[in-house]
Amino acid sequence: MKLGMIGLGKMGYNLVQNMLQHNHQVVVNDVNPEPGMKLVEEGAEFAASIEEVVAKLSSPRIVWIMVPAGQIVDQVIDKLIPMLEQGDIVIDGGNSHYKQSLARAEKLDGHGIHFFDIGTSGGTNGAANGGCFMIGGDKETFAIIEPIFQNIAVDRGYLYAGKNGSGHYLKMVHNGIEYGMMQSIAEGFELLSKSEFDFNYEEVARVWSNGSVIRSWLMELTENAFSKDPNLDGIRGVMKSSGEGKWTVETALDLEVSTPIIALSLLMRYRSLETDTFHGKVVAALRNEFGGHAVERIN
Amino acid sequence: MKLGMIGLGKMGYNLVQNMLQHNHQVVVNDVNPEPGMKLVEEGAEFAASIEEVVAKLSSPRIVWIMVPAGQIVDQVIDKLIPMLEQGDIVIDGGNSHYKQSLARAEKLDGHGIHFFDIGTSGGTNGAANGGCFMIGGDKETFAIIEPIFQNIAVDRGYLYAGKNGSGHYLKMVHNGIEYGMMQSIAEGFELLSKSEFDFNYEEVARVWSNGSVIRSWLMELTENAFSKDPNLDGIRGVMKSSGEGKWTVETALDLEVSTPIIALSLLMRYRSLETDTFHGKVVAALRNEFGGHAVERIN
Amino acid sequence: MKLGMIGLGKMGYNLVQNMLQHNHQVVVNDVNPEPGMKLVEEGAEFAASIEEVVAKLSSPRIVWIMVPAGQIVDQVIDKLIPMLEQGDIVIDGGNSHYKQSLARAEKLDGHGIHFFDIGTSGGTNGAANGGCFMIGGDKETFAIIEPIFQNIAVDRGYLYAGKNGSGHYLKMVHNGIEYGMMQSIAEGFELLSKSEFDFNYEEVARVWSNGSVIRSWLMELTENAFSKDPNLDGIRGVMKSSGEGKWTVETALDLEVSTPIIALSLLMRYRSLETDTFHGKVVAALRNEFGGHAVERIN
Amino acid sequence: MKLGMIGLGKMGYNLVQNMLQHNHQVVVNDVNPEPGMKLVEEGAEFAASIEEVVAKLSSPRIVWIMVPAGQIVDQVIDKLIPMLEQGDIVIDGGNSHYKQSLARAEKLDGHGIHFFDIGTSGGTNGAANGGCFMIGGDKETFAIIEPIFQNIAVDRGYLYAGKNGSGHYLKMVHNGIEYGMMQSIAEGFELLSKSEFDFNYEEVARVWSNGSVIRSWLMELTENAFSKDPNLDGIRGVMKSSGEGKWTVETALDLEVSTPIIALSLLMRYRSLETDTFHGKVVAALRNEFGGHAVERIN
Repeated sequence: MKLGMIGLGKMGYNLVQNMLQHNHQVVVNDVNPEPGMKLVEEGAEFAASIEEVVAKLSSPRIVWIMVPAGQIVDQVIDKLIPMLEQGDIVIDGGNSHYKQSLARAEKLDGHGIHFFDIGTSGGTNGAANGGCFMIGGDKETFAIIEPIFQNIAVDRGYLYAGKNGSGHYLKMVHNGIEYGMMQSIAEGFELLSKSEFDFNYEEVARVWSNGSVIRSWLMELTENAFSKDPNLDGIRGVMKSSGEGKWTVETALDLEVSTPIIALSLLMRYRSLETDTFHGKVVAALRNEFGGHAVERIN
Repeated sequence: MKLGMIGLGKMGYNLVQNMLQHNHQVVVNDVNPEPGMKLVEEGAEFAASIEEVVAKLSSPRIVWIMVPAGQIVDQVIDKLIPMLEQGDIVIDGGNSHYKQSLARAEKLDGHGIHFFDIGTSGGTNGAANGGCFMIGGDKETFAIIEPIFQNIAVDRGYLYAGKNGSGHYLKMVHNGIEYGMMQSIAEGFELLSKSEFDFNYEEVARVWSNGSVIRSWLMELTENAFSKDPNLDGIRGVMKSSGEGKWTVETALDLEVSTPIIALSLLMRYRSLETDTFHGKVVAALRNEFGGHAVERIN
Repeated sequence: MKLGMIGLGKMGYNLVQNMLQHNHQVVVNDVNPEPGMKLVEEGAEFAASIEEVVAKLSSPRIVWIMVPAGQIVDQVIDKLIPMLEQGDIVIDGGNSHYKQSLARAEKLDGHGIHFFDIGTSGGTNGAANGGCFMIGGDKETFAIIEPIFQNIAVDRGYLYAGKNGSGHYLKMVHNGIEYGMMQSIAEGFELLSKSEFDFNYEEVARVWSNGSVIRSWLMELTENAFSKDPNLDGIRGVMKSSGEGKWTVETALDLEVSTPIIALSLLMRYRSLETDTFHGKVVAALRNEFGGHAVERIN
Repeated sequence: MKLGMIGLGKMGYNLVQNMLQHNHQVVVNDVNPEPGMKLVEEGAEFAASIEEVVAKLSSPRIVWIMVPAGQIVDQVIDKLIPMLEQGDIVIDGGNSHYKQSLARAEKLDGHGIHFFDIGTSGGTNGAANGGCFMIGGDKETFAIIEPIFQNIAVDRGYLYAGKNGSGHYLKMVHNGIEYGMMQSIAEGFELLSKSEFDFNYEEVARVWSNGSVIRSWLMELTENAFSKDPNLDGIRGVMKSSGEGKWTVETALDLEVSTPIIALSLLMRYRSLETDTFHGKVVAALRNEFGGHAVERIN
């Protein structure tokens, strides 16, 4: 199968390698020519522009967009629309909000172009060697692109999830679950660190990765992390977030779904961005007001 | 009415002043003679020892214990038992665990001595000028000591709550609610501090103290606190706790009661004791493992 | 002072009564003529339409809008714009989102019309007899309308908070705090209800309302509620919400502020809308899968 | 290696099968003779009493206790002590509290008997075919029993964790993490169930089990559960708990560790035990008091 890939960052680059290894033909393009040049050595076809991507494909054209979520996706789609024809296929494999995917699907549908919103999981390694794909779009048209996923996904690792939006919705919720799982694991290790015992965290993560109820890829990654820095002395506990957890909580609010664990996992990330807090000052001041409890003063 | 007060810390001292102002006779004792000496000037009778306290009272003797919670209460009670007689009354007005109060009531009951567990709220100012008292013990015997509370409590500010344990149970839950209210207010001000607006926190606390749905003594204290330090620049946001919030959550666990707000308010206090966390390091390391997200390194 | 009031629901109606009692002249209008007719008996001037409201005022005209939040506010403002002149004043005293207030202020400013976003608290009783008002808008212009608030607010119960948006922002956060306080109180009473003691809830709420650290208007209302139905046997524990708590949490997410208590208070409300949950089924099923723990079957 | 197994419930029974398959000799005993009889058919040696278990072993005797946590463990240990000799080994493989294990280790140590507290994970299937074992006790003595774990654990699935107590501490924290992970997954599926999409939950659990960041044994079990009942229509969402999650939270409180996710996961389980709540009634009544919001009445 032949397709175009626009966006050759960590994820796009690895996906192309994965596709090439499975004998798909990939026309590659990125605002930065370097990664495309390197992929040519592995068999990809270089395109200096989006126009060139489209020109090198034939009907029905399949164009996979793998750029940072947000306005850039819309810019690429807006460029693509006049170049594409009825029956062509546009895929957004990035972390877009499912509501944006619904809007983009409608826009492309107005031009007879099929759209698929695909949530991709498994990290960069998964992209290269077998990832997990959650796919929303037209079911019949999906048959055209399915062979790609039979190759680039890990076994049983892709799902036609339903109409447009469902792919990115699944990915969003997946990330919400991920936030909760990570925080659960992390709280567990904090309980180890404050105990009277002298645990070897790497070994604990190893034994929990083998045979336990909580065995999981995240636990294996925990083992990896501790193998590099046994007490994580070298890093700060600042827990950044890139937006999908927030979307999950916002969606929970909109749908009136009670998701305390996912919400709290996100809020603890925000909490970690600060070393001192204003709410803490207020509580400390109040304890002093009514009970005369001492406060810690800043000089 | 004549009674003995053992323990003349902030709360005990102020309670005695309150009682004296209402023409009660109070025999005062503390391991430290100083506060007792000062109270003599206001009309109290000094006792150099617990024996002397008891000796200066007549049947039915009323001994109010106002010492730090824990073993000291038991030590005082164990000293008192052989000196007291059937029908005498022992009051624990401190922050004891209600289960300990149940045990102490049973022990004293074995000697025919009545016990009252009294939760006291309102801070030191309340103790001096009219506080809030939640009282557990025998209902009939309560009639003997009720006149004291008609004087030292603010109007409608005392309650015979039920059998032994109920007074300290109420106080414990009161403090759990207090944790939740304080954290609610504090989170609100954090939302103000991070907004695009330039709020005067003292004025906000003032307007919210007058006519709003959330008007409360804690909001008035918030106004006080900001009046002294407009942005609380001088204090750190370390939120200590003295045990009753923890008891409330432990009780919730034992009774299988879902109290997310009280529990979280306590856990946020624990969180505030640290500037960096081990759980944060684990999450940061995991994000790096699966997604290559940058971590903040410590040199 | 003379002003127009558009919207005579529970809040608008009571505000007009309050203003009339303080000898302000109020031109009243509502889609439903009835409440306006009744207010005429108390001294108000009736207007059958928005046009009539404007016609009965003179420069600078002051029009207070007190309609349900959302599109209706915009409809009224859009009607008002062509009728008003430079220097006139529009007030939105409803529960609008502060970002909408910012947008409306900008729109009105384009026509030289001043806008005030006013958060109103204290319930219907407060509106009638002295409420709490948080006011955002131009500071100099505020001097024109300040006399109204000197009358209709409880003493010290109004605040010029800052530029447009700040009034409704304060009201939003006020409601977030309210959610947390209410849930705190409610969890406390649940702890009473599941204890080994036999508490009289009304009396507990009464004693906590007098002299305690947690004394507050909400606690007084708790006493009222229990005085009508001692165990609340007559009502279901369904906790609805009308939007401001949700806005508060959304704002916290946008500003990356950690507000666990306010967020959880909202999520527990959503939880209360259901008697059984899908997440509960999943956990129950999982416990059965790995540990053979029994599930409760539905016939 | 030869050892005795006291307690042949689900876990003990399966562990014996596992040991027998690896050519260990196992003397089996249970208050109920049936499971022991069946294990004889698979090669076990039957003992009608704890005395018989001990009599059939030779120094150093190894006795593995696998009975319900709590007093029964102490009863068995108290029976064993006079029958055992210096250098013998007692293993508690059940879900005991780590503080009890510390006390038991000390008691047995007073008689020169070695004690190991072993946390066992992996469910009944893991017990039979390769589980996960977290082991606390004397390091040198561990060398004697290590060959058993080389056989009955999954590869890399056992850990000598440190001194006594550390094995059960790890198991306790493991279960705390498990609570958080399960609730995370469950909230995710609730978000799917309330979305505008029509997801096939089994297929979603399947795709998330293959290649995704959240792949885990629990997700595979989720797939299993949905394969049997596609929408879990047949079961109620009552989330029971058997104590270790509670111990984890209690330990967090004692150590002042902030574990919001584990704590909330437990509290949501308690919440699920009820269809209506008293705290909900209080909040509903309060909304009615201050804002006149309608309550749902019970006839």
